[in-house]
Amino acid sequence: MKKLKIPEQTVERLPLYLRRTEELYSDGEESVTSHQFVKDLPGINSDNLRKDLSYFGSYGKKGSGYDISQLQEELRNILRLHMETLVVLVGAGNLGTALLTHQDFNRWGFRITAAFDNDPDKIDDPIGGIRVRPTHDMRPTIQDEGIEVAMIAVPSDSAQLVADSLVSAGIKGILNFAPALLEVPPEITVKQMDITSKLKELNYYLD
Amino acid sequence: MKKLKIPEQTVERLPLYLRRTEELYSDGEESVTSHQFVKDLPGINSDNLRKDLSYFGSYGKKGSGYDISQLQEELRNILRLHMETLVVLVGAGNLGTALLTHQDFNRWGFRITAAFDNDPDKIDDPIGGIRVRPTHDMRPTIQDEGIEVAMIAVPSDSAQLVADSLVSAGIKGILNFAPALLEVPPEITVKQMDITSKLKELNYYLD
Repeated sequence: MKKLKIPEQTVERLPLYLRRTEELYSDGEESVTSHQFVKDLPGINSDNLRKDLSYFGSYGKKGSGYDISQLQEELRNILRLHMETLVVLVGAGNLGTALLTHQDFNRWGFRITAAFDNDPDKIDDPIGGIRVRPTHDMRPTIQDEGIEVAMIAVPSDSAQLVADSLVSAGIKGILNFAPALLEVPPEITVKQMDITSKLKELNYYLD
Repeated sequence: MKKLKIPEQTVERLPLYLRRTEELYSDGEESVTSHQFVKDLPGINSDNLRKDLSYFGSYGKKGSGYDISQLQEELRNILRLHMETLVVLVGAGNLGTALLTHQDFNRWGFRITAAFDNDPDKIDDPIGGIRVRPTHDMRPTIQDEGIEVAMIAVPSDSAQLVADSLVSAGIKGILNFAPALLEVPPEITVKQMDITSKLKELNYYLD
């Protein structure tokens, strides 16, 4: 599939729209206007929504608005959620443990197939049903299983080293929980999941 | 302090800029051009940076660019990081445990003072030095200690109930880890820390 050219900020909002379609669907709504749709979506107005959705050719109908099931299907397609995505986790500390036991991944097709840590005490210990393996198994596992996505949950001072190994093993996308900026080749996608940064952002609004 | 009017998308990038000033500072840089500054900042170019910083009156000098220490100081000020922010955590499961033991909060002035859970087995059990208290203590604790920020790490089906209690107890800002959209009064700020949404966003870029 030729990649559609969608602005990065729009892509960032698509999962939020998908959550909203789920909510509306479970509320029994079949179609809603853009105004109803953006209710409770923080910082997004109906103009933003219409523009964002228009990038992949989704337009509401005059009067009735957006068809919820259809929009949900389009969002799932654009985010490639119809196929399973295999994920590895590096770092089986407290955050890693939380990720291995996170309930929300499987239903969206994200399956953690392997976890790695360099602490001998953690090796072979299964967490959330996944056996923790030594870090030197990382490369063969990723290559043999053709895994494209990795989550990094190691301390910030080892995050870059881990990222380098992941990239050289063939990983294409990284979700980085370490509070460190990663240097990667341009063809690799990195998304930061930086908890303290989000707290700082929230902090701005308090006065 | 009268709140400066800074666009939400800009505020979202300020913590990233702050991280970058730290990196540059520890590399021994005293000033850098906007081009050097945005290197390794995913999806941000030098025009974005200059525009973002201009909102709070920070301009680079012709030739030498931005003074790192000065910019760091300005970013800390704008994000209100010179004072301590007290935080409560609701939900002491695996993710809550990871948050209670997260090393990066304290150095930025975020101090978790209390954790709440409704599981009797967890009550009084200290995690990361913080004693877990029963949920019915939430309101008096928040009110007595004048706490303004809460992190929600409960299952998604109880997130709205928890948010309602927090708001009625006086919380002003919520960092929500539950994969659910929260309905709150307009004066309350909610930031979503939705891990699966970030994975979906990352997934878009793989093909």
